[in-house]
Amino acid sequence: MSQSSPEVQHVLVPDLPEFRQHRWEGINPIFYADDTLPAGLPPVQGLIAWNASAAMRRQLLHLPGLRWTLVLLAGVDQWLAEVPESVDFYNAKTLHHEAVAQHAAALMLAVARGLYQLASARQWTAKHALPPLYNLKGREVVLWGYGHIGTQLEKLLTPFGAHFTRLNSSTTQADIDAALHNADDLVLLLPLTDETRHIVDASVLGKLKAGAWLYNLGRGELVDTDALLTALQENGNLGGAALDVTDPEPLPAQHPLWQQPNVLITPHIASTTDDQGWRAAQYAADFVAKMLRGEPLDKVKVQRDKGY
Amino acid sequence: MSQSSPEVQHVLVPDLPEFRQHRWEGINPIFYADDTLPAGLPPVQGLIAWNASAAMRRQLLHLPGLRWTLVLLAGVDQWLAEVPESVDFYNAKTLHHEAVAQHAAALMLAVARGLYQLASARQWTAKHALPPLYNLKGREVVLWGYGHIGTQLEKLLTPFGAHFTRLNSSTTQADIDAALHNADDLVLLLPLTDETRHIVDASVLGKLKAGAWLYNLGRGELVDTDALLTALQENGNLGGAALDVTDPEPLPAQHPLWQQPNVLITPHIASTTDDQGWRAAQYAADFVAKMLRGEPLDKVKVQRDKGY
Repeated sequence: MSQSSPEVQHVLVPDLPEFRQHRWEGINPIFYADDTLPAGLPPVQGLIAWNASAAMRRQLLHLPGLRWTLVLLAGVDQWLAEVPESVDFYNAKTLHHEAVAQHAAALMLAVARGLYQLASARQWTAKHALPPLYNLKGREVVLWGYGHIGTQLEKLLTPFGAHFTRLNSSTTQADIDAALHNADDLVLLLPLTDETRHIVDASVLGKLKAGAWLYNLGRGELVDTDALLTALQENGNLGGAALDVTDPEPLPAQHPLWQQPNVLITPHIASTTDDQGWRAAQYAADFVAKMLRGEPLDKVKVQRDKGY
Repeated sequence: MSQSSPEVQHVLVPDLPEFRQHRWEGINPIFYADDTLPAGLPPVQGLIAWNASAAMRRQLLHLPGLRWTLVLLAGVDQWLAEVPESVDFYNAKTLHHEAVAQHAAALMLAVARGLYQLASARQWTAKHALPPLYNLKGREVVLWGYGHIGTQLEKLLTPFGAHFTRLNSSTTQADIDAALHNADDLVLLLPLTDETRHIVDASVLGKLKAGAWLYNLGRGELVDTDALLTALQENGNLGGAALDVTDPEPLPAQHPLWQQPNVLITPHIASTTDDQGWRAAQYAADFVAKMLRGEPLDKVKVQRDKGY
């Protein structure tokens, strides 16, 4: 069957080396850069996307005849409103969870072992000047949001002796409050939706016990940054915060969060690994193969009403 | 039975709050500070020790009538030569292994996730300026020295997908070389003995593949520091080094190791936790109880010929 057969879909594919070098079977890949569409584009049925500007997202999603879109992210808050109802919308729920869970574990251990301070000390720190040092044995960890990442994080840190409490959208307010009161570590793994924006505000931060740490691996806007700053400062009750995502993002050079000694910030790289491009290309190819075989894709379909 | 009964041993116990507050059963504890012995000391049969200066170690270990010593450390290199043959010598093989294994895991994850650099960046680092980022899946980790710490570290990091190779004193040179050639991470967990001093020299570092990282949780003198510095510098092949112990120690402020961007140093605190004093007091009390019940203590007896 020739590649120009009318049955073979044209699919837009990110123009990255790892995607270019992949062997795409059963589709005609058309490679596109972040910021421009190729000239003379034929009608395309599918779109595989990763990072794209807001303008580019709009342009891509409104191509006439587009039937489906696979966005290679777990959090699709920036895409959701743009995807027409006529387009089947899928995300990558299992592409990033391993890396993000390992990043979360790295942050929690870096705090436990004082590395967030010792890494920049560049001198031998005397015992009396050390940050609190502990290990994760018996640590009460509350996972707010419990999907693939939370499941994996539990698997990773259970051998360390951490105890886990899971909060999800069906947890009662009373149970949420009880969990917050008991938490040593509060780990945000929620998607960003209208319901979760600023879910961590002054009230939630006030329910945490003195010295608790906040971890945000979800989206910066889950947290009210002003309330966080207040809780982090001297008279606040928070032990500290480790944030892979911030609001605003990127966090400006003059932002007061950078000046807090009890804050560890990574620049939204929880899912980044040297082999991420390969993994993403393979994930997309597996998705396409499944689709072409007519297998059910419900598990990776975005639940638009829920926002993830 | 009164406490002054001649059958009740006098035992020197560190003068720390956690030891003072412990209920010592079956012995007469005599509390002593790091630097001086109490006046009017009666004959003592036992010594429980932790940190002490060289002069104090000598003084303690040569008290007439001393029958046994429990040193609450895993590495007893500083004590070994001083303990008379007539004194039964025990160490704390299972007091610190959990904390040290968690610290080793923290260092390995801090390197994998770039935290050793990002923690001090204090600004949003652009993608192109990030250190290499990876997770531990498929990472080839060589444990040089395999006792309680190594066993625990394997247990902690196997769920992350790390692969382990164990080297111990009976591993052949050919197998050591093969492991070094294949290692992504070389983790030193050896005791310091005449055989292991400078075991990691220019030759060993040269066998590691480009980009491999060295982790030292054992003793600083396991590594030839000059050879390490050469391997760390621009034309060296080492990815970097994360060191909880150094040679010399403490590492002087002007030492060139502090200036290496690919070095993460913690000030010999792998075993330190907020509850370490309590754990140590409990460990010592359990030891004493076992001894008084006449149970075998071979497992915690120092093998003087081996040095640990």
